[in-house]
Amino acid sequence: MGHLGNHMLNAADFHSNDRGFGMHYLNTIQKTWVLSRLAIEMTEMPEAYDRFHVETWVESAMRFFTNRNFRVVADTADGEKVYGYGRSVWAMIDTETRQPTDILAIKDGSIRDYIEAEKTCPIQKSSRVKMGPDAKLVRTIDTQYSDVDINGHINSVKYIEHVLDLWNLEWYKQHSIRRFEIAYVAEAHQGDRLSFYMEHTPSEEADSGHEEQAFSVRIVKETEDGCEPVETCRSHVVFVTHP
Amino acid sequence: MGHLGNHMLNAADFHSNDRGFGMHYLNTIQKTWVLSRLAIEMTEMPEAYDRFHVETWVESAMRFFTNRNFRVVADTADGEKVYGYGRSVWAMIDTETRQPTDILAIKDGSIRDYIEAEKTCPIQKSSRVKMGPDAKLVRTIDTQYSDVDINGHINSVKYIEHVLDLWNLEWYKQHSIRRFEIAYVAEAHQGDRLSFYMEHTPSEEADSGHEEQAFSVRIVKETEDGCEPVETCRSHVVFVTHP
Repeated sequence: MGHLGNHMLNAADFHSNDRGFGMHYLNTIQKTWVLSRLAIEMTEMPEAYDRFHVETWVESAMRFFTNRNFRVVADTADGEKVYGYGRSVWAMIDTETRQPTDILAIKDGSIRDYIEAEKTCPIQKSSRVKMGPDAKLVRTIDTQYSDVDINGHINSVKYIEHVLDLWNLEWYKQHSIRRFEIAYVAEAHQGDRLSFYMEHTPSEEADSGHEEQAFSVRIVKETEDGCEPVETCRSHVVFVTHP
Repeated sequence: MGHLGNHMLNAADFHSNDRGFGMHYLNTIQKTWVLSRLAIEMTEMPEAYDRFHVETWVESAMRFFTNRNFRVVADTADGEKVYGYGRSVWAMIDTETRQPTDILAIKDGSIRDYIEAEKTCPIQKSSRVKMGPDAKLVRTIDTQYSDVDINGHINSVKYIEHVLDLWNLEWYKQHSIRRFEIAYVAEAHQGDRLSFYMEHTPSEEADSGHEEQAFSVRIVKETEDGCEPVETCRSHVVFVTHP
């Protein structure tokens, strides 16, 4: 799932660069895209050696956020096979001030020329992950060199892997991920100690008839000065139990 | 470096499958390739958005081992640019007995038809990493779901990442990896606790005039029954200090 998330982020990068509003251009004006939310729903996972591609398009663009969707698809003899979909929300920030900046001010709002509002993405939008007071501390990790991206921040995909590592191999033999969702709240850096709090949502009977289990996860980084820990991410994972 | 190692292993997989002695065929006769050693030397690392390819060829094939080399190269306006090279050693095992099996017995030794002995790979062969009695325990980790491959074993590339994580981001700002080498000794599984022992080899003046620093790392897995820990990997990493 982390590797697939990486393909989606790469697709977003290529797509935006090819249209002139990607990092190549933004780097020249001290701005950058920041991933705010990512949600992935797979009905089936590609297997080893399967050939597939990731499509991406802009669903909408507002002043401070843009919605970008993904479709994971393979060509087949009689058409195509859709493995699943993704949704993402991006902000743009000024790399000097780290403050949000107006997306529609870039090249006179040229991103609007690429909005494909009619393309459907049949998965739920991300919503704020609710966490109650009963979430339990389930793991604490020290972040390492391989966790960081070129900017020194903990990499978006590594967060996905750390969340999915909260379950062991035995669990994954009996459950598949139906939906994975993560919201990036604050940046963390190499060496930060991250704590993972988890809350279990009671099982439900899904449309498919398979049992579903949902979990919410809050990741916080400890601060050096002994102040309140700072929330860096929230995630929501829905598993379906194998029949 | 881990990502690059992954590209090399994928190249090996494609190359051997295309020639009929890869996993696709071996799966049908209950045999599999097992990576025994990997060494990578880079004179330069590809940067973000650089387009490069990984070449691979069989240097030699014996009964129980085959040597496969790699070349990381980019096309340029006036020819090509070589980023670096890799060397690997592979064994073949029977998936039922987990015992070594005769590589040259596969399809009447057809791998020999693909030996390219004349292609040069100008980096040192792997050799046994010597560890003295002074290696210090520097980290212990619990392996997680994202550490394992399809067979439930700790993934070759994840070992590379765990070894490279023994140095922090500050170190990597001042040092580049000149040579990375790893030997896979025994398999580990998700949940195994791995301990990393490290030994520093005194600095040397390299050919390039830059200072080099070398480290040897031994990874052991703790056993459940309180017996002696079992060595799973040995690694040797040479860094060059930035001028």
